[in-house]
Amino acid sequence: MLSDPALADLRAIFGDRLSLSPAMLAEHGASESLVTAGLPDAVAFPRSTAEVAALAAWSTRHLVPLIGWGAGTSLEGHALAVAGGVVVDFREMAQVLEVRAEDRLVRVKPGITREALNHELRTTGLMFPVDPGANASLGGMAATRASGTTAVRYGTMRDNVRGLEVVLADGRVIRTGTGAPKSSAGYDLTALMVGSEGTLGLITELTLRLHGQPEAMMTAVAAFAGVAQAVDCVIATMQMGLTPARIEFLDVETVLACNAYSKLTLPAAPQLLVEFHGHPEGVAEDVRRFRELSEGFGAEGLQWAERQEDRTRLWAARHSAYRAILATRPGAKAVVTDVCVPISALTQAVEETRADIAASGIPGPILGHVGDGNFHAILLVDPASADEVTTAKALAARMAYRSLALGGTITGEHGVGFGKLGHMAAEHGAAWAVMGTLKRALDPLNLMNPGKLVPG
Amino acid sequence: MLSDPALADLRAIFGDRLSLSPAMLAEHGASESLVTAGLPDAVAFPRSTAEVAALAAWSTRHLVPLIGWGAGTSLEGHALAVAGGVVVDFREMAQVLEVRAEDRLVRVKPGITREALNHELRTTGLMFPVDPGANASLGGMAATRASGTTAVRYGTMRDNVRGLEVVLADGRVIRTGTGAPKSSAGYDLTALMVGSEGTLGLITELTLRLHGQPEAMMTAVAAFAGVAQAVDCVIATMQMGLTPARIEFLDVETVLACNAYSKLTLPAAPQLLVEFHGHPEGVAEDVRRFRELSEGFGAEGLQWAERQEDRTRLWAARHSAYRAILATRPGAKAVVTDVCVPISALTQAVEETRADIAASGIPGPILGHVGDGNFHAILLVDPASADEVTTAKALAARMAYRSLALGGTITGEHGVGFGKLGHMAAEHGAAWAVMGTLKRALDPLNLMNPGKLVPG
Repeated sequence: MLSDPALADLRAIFGDRLSLSPAMLAEHGASESLVTAGLPDAVAFPRSTAEVAALAAWSTRHLVPLIGWGAGTSLEGHALAVAGGVVVDFREMAQVLEVRAEDRLVRVKPGITREALNHELRTTGLMFPVDPGANASLGGMAATRASGTTAVRYGTMRDNVRGLEVVLADGRVIRTGTGAPKSSAGYDLTALMVGSEGTLGLITELTLRLHGQPEAMMTAVAAFAGVAQAVDCVIATMQMGLTPARIEFLDVETVLACNAYSKLTLPAAPQLLVEFHGHPEGVAEDVRRFRELSEGFGAEGLQWAERQEDRTRLWAARHSAYRAILATRPGAKAVVTDVCVPISALTQAVEETRADIAASGIPGPILGHVGDGNFHAILLVDPASADEVTTAKALAARMAYRSLALGGTITGEHGVGFGKLGHMAAEHGAAWAVMGTLKRALDPLNLMNPGKLVPG
Repeated sequence: MLSDPALADLRAIFGDRLSLSPAMLAEHGASESLVTAGLPDAVAFPRSTAEVAALAAWSTRHLVPLIGWGAGTSLEGHALAVAGGVVVDFREMAQVLEVRAEDRLVRVKPGITREALNHELRTTGLMFPVDPGANASLGGMAATRASGTTAVRYGTMRDNVRGLEVVLADGRVIRTGTGAPKSSAGYDLTALMVGSEGTLGLITELTLRLHGQPEAMMTAVAAFAGVAQAVDCVIATMQMGLTPARIEFLDVETVLACNAYSKLTLPAAPQLLVEFHGHPEGVAEDVRRFRELSEGFGAEGLQWAERQEDRTRLWAARHSAYRAILATRPGAKAVVTDVCVPISALTQAVEETRADIAASGIPGPILGHVGDGNFHAILLVDPASADEVTTAKALAARMAYRSLALGGTITGEHGVGFGKLGHMAAEHGAAWAVMGTLKRALDPLNLMNPGKLVPG
């Protein structure tokens, strides 16, 4: 609850771009996942860095938390107001500021979504490849260090954010990075901010790396006898020096869900969905080699989609997999997990997880970015059943600890928020306290997205 | 000067692996560059993380600085004891701990050099590609965020360090990163430590990404009419989606120096030295396309070296360029500069720098990693001439400020040390103070490599 003076000061900055309406608060107090929290006290819609800086100064003066908000697609409660405060919704800061084609860079405001950005880039021959599935905002993707299907070739947000403008807790505005492709000039503040989930500052501008739209693309789908054969095929592919643009694993339950939802006719077996980008000659050889390799691992029904519409149909099905899986159990909500292990441990991680899920009685199809060792189980629960929710959360926790035991991480791409806060000490040990030290150094009053990521 | 109790405590940790001999202090008080400082008080040779942790605890107890030392090849005085203290020489911590071929990872101790590492990897089909020219230690390369000729394809140390073990100022030992290819679990402490130049802690172990040894490699050298044509050819190459493994620029003075020193017969013109890696079919097409493109920009005498010995000869000449340039002026010392600009500004940066050098009367051949916008002028001065040294340092400063004006950085790969400390405020503005805040948070007594990188 904001005090009268605080509210008056806030209205002085934002005028009618401030909302306290119950509908707006409810919209910004909800998330796609089962992670829930209370409502924010207000939602502000800044139009400029100066307004965000004024908001940070206001926050320091009135000791009210600030929580950044992009497209609201995060899965671990990152953007929820666990201690009240003002949600900073960046929807009105969503412009492309500058495309620098020769340098393959673009400067954008944080609220623009990845689809909107790529739409603006469509005639430039360039693209922004990071693709987490959801049409997230770029600011949110940077804040959670998002990745997705194309990270195996193009990297994650860690690799594709060249520089940032950030408003710090005390209202100072800093710029990180330069227009040069690399630098050794001091601490990598860009990398520190990417993945900091709004706990160190609010991102008000991003400079992103662009990549050429590939001249040739080939997509294939291949069925394997089991997880081990599919993963071994991926390991051999990478070791041969082939670099797929995407290489995705779908277990048999996911395949059946996609068949039903997206009207595909894939065989009922674990599948790899793979894509190569490059010049036609290079891609042709990639395809030839992948065919030979995958047949050596028992792949069947390998089909190449060269036509744009066939490729689009396959990837649309992959992107709809989450909804396809939800549709297999009407009324269900999903506990979405997100572990990432060394690729040598991937078969063991997936097989143990499948056995654990099967024993639980809860449906939990598995799919993942197998080239990165990253996979998700979509655990389908009846939200009215406390038992099922408890069982699913216990399964998710066991997945996280299994990942750690295999040398992996509790989250490959979704981030910590407060959904994964309880597992951070197990992953980082003494390094988690160091994160807390950094947080306190930059935000001593704990006003930037409190209750997330660092020790409480 | 160490106090008697401090020295006694230090001897208790290191026994005879502690040196106070004048020769050893002098060796660790010198550097390849003209950047000079006083001598350290002692040099310690730890054999384990536990010994480094004990040393950090000792440092805190006795308030004596610690300065990490790898191969001593840094160029900005990074490893010099500007405030006395103990140099921590990692030569006895130089082992390969584990090669994980399926995960394409290697764990190493910080003192191993990149050549020694690649020698150990030679039978694995894998390689560590980052190549700064000097046979630096991996710990030092991580500490300075080094890169070099191959960064255009394989990235810098930022991209190739997966995780670290670090001893903090207070003696705590933390591990950063996991064995998984990516993670969104909190602040990127790995990236914060890479490039921190020993000011936040001492790196005692590294987990590095490996890459497959390429099946096919082709190297070519091509002469251009001027800088603009060579750079425009590089921009077009990248925009076409070709990814050279290396693409190096040599100005005509550098070419003549290499001809004389390495017995080459390159034409007296600016040259690009380019290499492609991949499978034979992909490389063949890369070569065909690069030939067509470069001829469009007026390239002449394009010659492809497919045989290992011809490739080796060309790259050996490139790697000897620094010595070749030094040999053109016997008795001279070099002021080595290191700017990095957006590639769209590279022609202007190089041409203005050439004009500035020509007007100065000091020889200063230019060469660089043109795919990254990174270039060096090797300013040759008579070390006995205070005038020449002053002129060279002024030229170097103008290069740094020119780079900033063009949107670049004061250092692409050499780092800050104390040689570039005076330019940090100009590059980072308010963000430099943030670096100081982070430094004080992790090293409140200012004992880890004091006098470097952050505001004093």
